[in-house]
This record gives sequence, structure tokens and C-alpha cells, in this order.
Amino acid sequence: MEEPPRIAFLGPTASFSHQAAIESFGTSAKLLPCVSFADVFAAVQQENVDYAVIPFENSTNGSVVQTLDLLADRDHLYKDTRVCGEYYLTVHHCLLVRKDTSSPERPSRKSITKLYTHPQVWGQCELFLSENLKGVERQDVSSTSKAAEIISTETTEGSAAIASRFAAEHHGVDVLEADIEDKLDNTTRFLILRNVQSGRTSQPFVGNSGAISTTGNKTLILFMVNHDSPGALADALLVFKTHGMNLTSINTRPSRKRPWHYIFFVECGCTPAADDRQVMEGLLGRLREIVEDCRELGTWKDQLHIPS
Amino acid sequence: MEEPPRIAFLGPTASFSHQAAIESFGTSAKLLPCVSFADVFAAVQQENVDYAVIPFENSTNGSVVQTLDLLADRDHLYKDTRVCGEYYLTVHHCLLVRKDTSSPERPSRKSITKLYTHPQVWGQCELFLSENLKGVERQDVSSTSKAAEIISTETTEGSAAIASRFAAEHHGVDVLEADIEDKLDNTTRFLILRNVQSGRTSQPFVGNSGAISTTGNKTLILFMVNHDSPGALADALLVFKTHGMNLTSINTRPSRKRPWHYIFFVECGCTPAADDRQVMEGLLGRLREIVEDCRELGTWKDQLHIPS
Repeated sequence: MEEPPRIAFLGPTASFSHQAAIESFGTSAKLLPCVSFADVFAAVQQENVDYAVIPFENSTNGSVVQTLDLLADRDHLYKDTRVCGEYYLTVHHCLLVRKDTSSPERPSRKSITKLYTHPQVWGQCELFLSENLKGVERQDVSSTSKAAEIISTETTEGSAAIASRFAAEHHGVDVLEADIEDKLDNTTRFLILRNVQSGRTSQPFVGNSGAISTTGNKTLILFMVNHDSPGALADALLVFKTHGMNLTSINTRPSRKRPWHYIFFVECGCTPAADDRQVMEGLLGRLREIVEDCRELGTWKDQLHIPS
Repeated sequence: MEEPPRIAFLGPTASFSHQAAIESFGTSAKLLPCVSFADVFAAVQQENVDYAVIPFENSTNGSVVQTLDLLADRDHLYKDTRVCGEYYLTVHHCLLVRKDTSSPERPSRKSITKLYTHPQVWGQCELFLSENLKGVERQDVSSTSKAAEIISTETTEGSAAIASRFAAEHHGVDVLEADIEDKLDNTTRFLILRNVQSGRTSQPFVGNSGAISTTGNKTLILFMVNHDSPGALADALLVFKTHGMNLTSINTRPSRKRPWHYIFFVECGCTPAADDRQVMEGLLGRLREIVEDCRELGTWKDQLHIPS
């Protein structure tokens, strides 16, 4: 690709999706923040961008339902949109304060009287907050990036935010304390999306790191199983085993066609030796005899086991 | 049981959980609204109640993550709490207005200037609202029951709520229009919980309808599978098939022990003929050889296929 790639991500700027996009595609990529999950998918489908970066799963909070529902594509809006990669981002939170140019001393934690962050973050930093900032007024905001932005412009003393170091750099505020989260291994997995009709993304996606995975591929397959069809689900899952594929995750969502009719999202992996397009075609053919509306949503290099 | 049963439900009063509790246990039961999902589980575990009614799954929105996380019981807080039944409630929304005793005429839709409901409900009544109440001011509130309560006390003209008929009756407001939801089959499945140590709930739960299911039992089983253990998940699911059990639903949640280590919630059913405690014991024994922390969360009569 001659021009730098254009990448959509779930905004606002300085969000974790933004960070994942830069870490995946480098700083020369043209980045487009989107206000909603649906806008990210639409940007790929309409070829306004080459790739998109969207959160799929968090190691503490689980699957991102909005992404599953858009991948399900019940209304056939995103028929050329496929998964072509993944990126694991370890989520670190920092205590941020406004840069104070008037005083040579760094502000202390004791001077903090008000804290801003996304509501989900309070629980993720419970130990630090109860030890160091007990009783300080808390204000929910729509994103951690927004929290950093607010304190960058606020003129009142004593305001602090909890957000990423990336957000601190973006909004020009100081990191008073890094890695204040309870779980140091809290990780979000992002999916990289592309449009299969686009000539600009026809090469396999390898990511900015340039690392080549040695643990093989992952494939995401979607299908529907009727609640009234006894045994079909077990039979379908058995097909993966008989074709030498390991199931690495299963998610379900309602089909919304009728109650208790489900869409299954099955991720499977294989060792590089068995990494054969023919195996996958055989698997899909057999699966289609058992389930309804079976679709392959993409195959990409497993990035989980790459040492960072 | 001599005394009427005591039932905890997810509040507020006149919520859909409240309605499910009354339809399951009758009006003579002593009902206790709880402010959180965790309070419902705690009420059962501490034997403050005999049973509890909690939402588990909606046919449009999918699984209720809060209930799955409490059933997972990662901190061993609810070790005696088990599922002993289920109840399917079809969700109907009504347009409600304040009883007007001063005028003999019913208010018309045209006089409505402000609407109150839970944020999820706007999308569920989109067709009706765009046809009949386009452009009317909308106010989000914490529950549909709360919306009905607000209009019951408000003195300003033109306020209306979207909530259930049950909430209308509870708060003494009028149903101007019934069944205004887009999908007439939108259904929530509730689980009935009990404490296995309690002598007051040792009889099998049959529900208020008195209907005896002829479609057999459902059993909910929880286990953990390591991402790094290839094939274990497929092997585990195969055990259900080899023991003659149909998988009816699968859900996953992060174990929160380490990233990409999952808790699986597998629901299985069997025909009445195969409904044998011995089969289940054999299945659990075999499963424990493959997976970690396998627990049976309860067995109960399938209520899905009972004609209402």
C-alpha cells in the first residue's frame, strides 16, 4: 500500500481503541475516531477506511455484546466486513493531574478533592482508591479519555482523573501515579476488521510489531442452532474436533428471529501444521449439514502467545 | 409449608421480576424486593427468604451477565444457593396516563407532551412511538415501574409512561394503549433460586400454575476450561451427548483467576424417560475428569414447552 492505511476506531480520541489502533498500525496511519460501534462497522463496509479496530473481549468483564451483535449482521448491512487480525492491549490506569507550571513541586495525592473517570474504572482500582483516596468525591464521565480532557481544561485545584498514560500524553496532563489498577493483567482483545472487496487490504494483516505468530491461526465461525433441534449443538461442536480444530471460545446471542433461537460464535485454532485452507473448507461443509446460516467471519494469526 | 413462602425478587415493586414472582408463587406469598442482584442471592443464602426470582435471559437482549456472575460464585458467598425452577414471562408494554377524575373523557395520545420509561424500552416500542408519539420529549428513568410511579404523582398535564399493565395496576394509573411493543414474543426467562440447606424448600418446586411439565428436566452445570488445554472444551461438551443429554444453552464468563480462562455455564435437558439421577451422576463424574471446578447448579422442570 503506497498511501498510509486509514483506520477507524471506537472513539473518542485517546481511548483504549485509539491506543490499540496506533500500536497495531503505527503513528503514520490515518486514524478516524467513530462515535459508535455501528459507525466503525459502517466505515469498513463503505470503504471509508481500510481497517478498523474494535474491542471484542476483556479478560475481566467478558465479551463485548455490541461487537458480537454487529458481527452477527442480522440485517445484512456489513456483508463484506471480516475479521483479519487481533491485538491484545494490557489495560493500565494512571492517576492524572493537571500540569502545574506555577509551582516547582509536584502536587501530592493529598491535594486531590475530586476524581473523574469512567464508571467501570472505580471497581478496577478499588484497592488503590480505598488506601489513598478514600472519601474523595467521584464524578462519572463517558470515557477515561474524557476524564483526562476535563482536568486538562479545568481551572479549579484538586481535580484528578483516572485514565491511561496514552490519554495523559494526548491531553497534556501529568501522570502522578502509574499502574494503580488492582489486576495488573487486565487485558482487552481488539479485533481488526477489513472489507473483503477492498484491494487495499488483500495482503494478510501482520500488525505493526512485525512479529510472525508461530502458534497458528484463529478462525471465527458463526452459525445458528434451533433450541428445538436436540443434539445439533453438540454435533456441530464435534465437527471442530473431528477436523483437528481446538475450540478457543464460544459466545451466544439471541437470533432475534424467534425466542430461544441462538447465534453461536465459535472461535477455533489449529497448529501451523494443520493450517490448511482445505481443512477449513471441509469443516464448514460438514457444519452446514448440521446448522443454519453458517458463515466464516475471518481467519487471522493468533497473537495471544507472542511474547511482547 | 404451613406459612406462606417468602420470596425475594429484583426490585423495585411492580418490576417484571415482581410480576414473575407473583405469577410463580401467587398473591399469598410474602414478597421482598431487593435493590441489587447480589442482595437477591444473599437473601437466599442467609435464608431470609425461601425462594428468589431473578432474570436470567431475555429473548431479544440475551443473557443477564449479573446473574451469571453471581451463579459463578467466585468468592464462595452463595454456596448453598441453587436453581430449582424457571418462569417465562412475556414482556408487554403499555402506554400509561394518570387517572383523571375531573374529566369524563379519556385523555388522548395527542395531549401527551412528555414520556417516561427505562432507556431499553424506547427501542422495544420504536414502531408505535414513531407512528403515534413522534417528537414527544423523552425522559429516561431507572425502571418501567418508576416511570409509572412518577406519572401517578405528577400534577402536570401531558405526562405518560411506558410500563407493564402490572405496574399500572400497582401504581393506580390508566392503560391508554396496551401491547405497544414491536415484538409481541419478547420474553424474559426468570430463574427460581432456593437454599439447599433449608428444610422449607426441600419439595420440588412446581410453580403456581400447578402444571406438570411433560418435557423433562433441565440441569445447569458450571465448569472451567483452560484456554491452554486444547480439545478440553469439545471433549467436555461431548460428554453431554454420550450421556443422552441435549445442550440447550451455553454461556461463558471470564474466570477472573487469569486472563482467557473461562467459566462455562451449560444447560442440558433430557426426555422424561432418561430423567435419571444416575445418568446425571455419571455425566458429572466423567466431566470432572476433563474440566476444573465442575458444579451442578440445579435441576428443575422445563417450563418452556408448557402451553400457557
